[in-house]
Amino acid sequence: MKSFFSIIIFLLGIVNPVFLNGQDFKQELVIKSIYKNALGSRKAYNDLRYLCKNTKGRISGSPQAAEAVEFTYQLMKQMNLDSVWLQPVMVKNWKRGKNEKASIHSSIMGIIEVPVLSLGGSVGTGEKGITAGIVEVKSFEELEALGKKKIKNKIVFFNKAMDPTLSSTFKAYSKTAFQRTRGAAEAAKYGAVAVVVRSLTIVNSDFPHTGIMFYEEGIPEIPAVVISTNGANLLNNWLKKDPGLQFYFENHCELWPEVLSYNVIGEIRGRERPDEIITIGGHLDSWDNSEGAHDDGGGCMQSIDVLRIFNELDIEPKRTVRAVMFMDEEYAQRGGQKYAEEAARKNEKHYFALESDAGVLTPRGFGFSLADEKRLQNLLSLNVYFKPYKTNLFKEGGWGVDIYPLRHICPILIGYIPDDSRYFNYHHSANDTFEKINHREMQMGTAAIASLVYLIDYFDF
Amino acid sequence: MKSFFSIIIFLLGIVNPVFLNGQDFKQELVIKSIYKNALGSRKAYNDLRYLCKNTKGRISGSPQAAEAVEFTYQLMKQMNLDSVWLQPVMVKNWKRGKNEKASIHSSIMGIIEVPVLSLGGSVGTGEKGITAGIVEVKSFEELEALGKKKIKNKIVFFNKAMDPTLSSTFKAYSKTAFQRTRGAAEAAKYGAVAVVVRSLTIVNSDFPHTGIMFYEEGIPEIPAVVISTNGANLLNNWLKKDPGLQFYFENHCELWPEVLSYNVIGEIRGRERPDEIITIGGHLDSWDNSEGAHDDGGGCMQSIDVLRIFNELDIEPKRTVRAVMFMDEEYAQRGGQKYAEEAARKNEKHYFALESDAGVLTPRGFGFSLADEKRLQNLLSLNVYFKPYKTNLFKEGGWGVDIYPLRHICPILIGYIPDDSRYFNYHHSANDTFEKINHREMQMGTAAIASLVYLIDYFDF
Repeated sequence: MKSFFSIIIFLLGIVNPVFLNGQDFKQELVIKSIYKNALGSRKAYNDLRYLCKNTKGRISGSPQAAEAVEFTYQLMKQMNLDSVWLQPVMVKNWKRGKNEKASIHSSIMGIIEVPVLSLGGSVGTGEKGITAGIVEVKSFEELEALGKKKIKNKIVFFNKAMDPTLSSTFKAYSKTAFQRTRGAAEAAKYGAVAVVVRSLTIVNSDFPHTGIMFYEEGIPEIPAVVISTNGANLLNNWLKKDPGLQFYFENHCELWPEVLSYNVIGEIRGRERPDEIITIGGHLDSWDNSEGAHDDGGGCMQSIDVLRIFNELDIEPKRTVRAVMFMDEEYAQRGGQKYAEEAARKNEKHYFALESDAGVLTPRGFGFSLADEKRLQNLLSLNVYFKPYKTNLFKEGGWGVDIYPLRHICPILIGYIPDDSRYFNYHHSANDTFEKINHREMQMGTAAIASLVYLIDYFDF
Repeated sequence: MKSFFSIIIFLLGIVNPVFLNGQDFKQELVIKSIYKNALGSRKAYNDLRYLCKNTKGRISGSPQAAEAVEFTYQLMKQMNLDSVWLQPVMVKNWKRGKNEKASIHSSIMGIIEVPVLSLGGSVGTGEKGITAGIVEVKSFEELEALGKKKIKNKIVFFNKAMDPTLSSTFKAYSKTAFQRTRGAAEAAKYGAVAVVVRSLTIVNSDFPHTGIMFYEEGIPEIPAVVISTNGANLLNNWLKKDPGLQFYFENHCELWPEVLSYNVIGEIRGRERPDEIITIGGHLDSWDNSEGAHDDGGGCMQSIDVLRIFNELDIEPKRTVRAVMFMDEEYAQRGGQKYAEEAARKNEKHYFALESDAGVLTPRGFGFSLADEKRLQNLLSLNVYFKPYKTNLFKEGGWGVDIYPLRHICPILIGYIPDDSRYFNYHHSANDTFEKINHREMQMGTAAIASLVYLIDYFDF
């Protein structure tokens, strides 16, 4: 029969003297009860279904975003928390408009429609749309080499594909995002009239994947759309056979006046140190073409569910734990900025902040950003508690777009890391639906986040 | 700038003196090239689509199984391997028959059809089917407590659900499999006329999940079907309102005479020690109601793809590497037994054997079964190479049903471990289709298997 001591070692997986005392066994049991509760509950999953199906397309400034604010506010109001409030924030109000469409016109192959979608922030083409010849490039260097002579009055087609052979899909994404974010501004420098950008996804599909783009001061603002990967492959193919083909598209985006919106915040007041704040959150807005299930309704519902689990298991944290639904991550990050501004203005004392905004796929671990090396090592060593749940990839470096502005007053930023294999199949597209959520994957993540919050608060790092 | 030495340490992740020499950097590069090749290739994925769509329901003895043998044989024949052959094996030939159906008949609630499926090995009810009262239990203890008086001439309904709150779905499965494998024999001891068993899956769905069952010598053989989890919940609910309801089902299974089938084997001959054999494989058969995408067409195609990768990258293993498509894992494991028998008869020298039969979901790592503790520790320490690919869960204990019979002549058995969150949504059901396969998840696994085979062969453990 195993001794008590060897059971602890077994549970911890790795012998780490810091944790070898009677308390740790208690922590193991608390974590076990958190996992049991999270996996046994369908509350967050069902709430996510409601959010996806009833506030679809909740981009900042939209009526759907306002509905999402109301829904999550009421959700937390019913949870017996210590306080729930709305934090006002003015947000941008970009609207896609109707009737986006595109087609390829070739005197050799004929005419074919292709799926496109305006990039977030794009201007519109006007009623008549744009028809022009098209020049395909894969980099800004190619653009420069072609020069004004070849680019002027043309549509530039950025067709650099995400590299499926990289071990990280996020790395593949970051290596191709330049064409989406800065393609229009660069192309306009050479006189292009518009840009069409290949969707940032690894799979061949008919879904265009949108995302934010930026114009540059003093450079003409030209319309920018993404095209589905299947559409991009077809266009690439037709261009080989007919380099003189014409591309037509129209879009009708407009930037409306800013509107008032809100971060939605709920908290459990700390038992010992109520003035020290732990923030966990996700962003409530999504792109206007999407249910925003993985990006990031899932992260929001996980954050709220951590508070539910604490309440149901009578876990009374020493510090105040807040679930924050940030508004406007996708467009201008006003919610995250506002939250940090208010925290600074009120001289709030922030202990750590954690964001879940990489999908609610099967968990891998957490990434930590902090300056203090010893503290970092202590945090990384907590991964022994997560080995039984295969969520023990703890690494240096991690945050979230919404908690990043907090970095000056919050010493520890943490990013939740789920598996990345499938994320970009959904990201910023109409394919990011509730049906792509697996209850178990989501709740294994919720349990991991709740357990980490519990442990860091408990150990007083 | 980082020194060469620190780059090696960085790549290895953990400082392990065993691996700190110039060669290791080379190994890192080989592994990187394996991942690049695997992720960049759609060959195995496309072959799996063919297998799923054209040999669906390939249970041992079926024409579809014969087609799967022919398909994989031709596949490997076209691959420029050193040899490809069929290993004859006589297999059982159980056939479900047509027109399986079931319904609940309640004088209070009415009549409703529910989805059922015979368990593998079940006898049939005969033309008229069986109609009887039904007794619900969750354990053999309950069965015993009820006794002959309450069970005789009844249908026993085993309704123990898989526990979704356990951290491992395989553990949840193993805790409920008794009712499927032995339920009929136990119920028959008390005079039951048939059994209906709750499907072994965590989700609520309309798919019945079949699987093997066993009769006992000297105990009457009574028909056994599984019911979908939605059906089981409905039956449970109706029984509460009308304990006297009648259950009707008919099935028409028959055990036909054994037929000749084959394991399909392809090999690359070893460069230095051709007489030492490394076996990697999966099972070619599937349940007759299923495309067998995750179970286990995926494992088969991964194994063949390892040989393709070795060939394309000019990796010449020291030892002979065999990809084996085992026949008849689901019914009587004849293929695995035959392979081990032939290996023993020919005095083959087996170095290690690895099986992929837990789905081709996102990779976690490998499990190792071997007696030599030092050798085990060396194998476990190889996980440093897999950290960049998040496939570094290396643990003691692992095998596969088909390689298990080899254990007497093969010192190392290895089981591939993918993520288990979604596996039982598909397992043994018509829901296990090619559409549930994600190319990247499958090929991250293929790369991990190829890399492990390469490393173990290279290091001469």
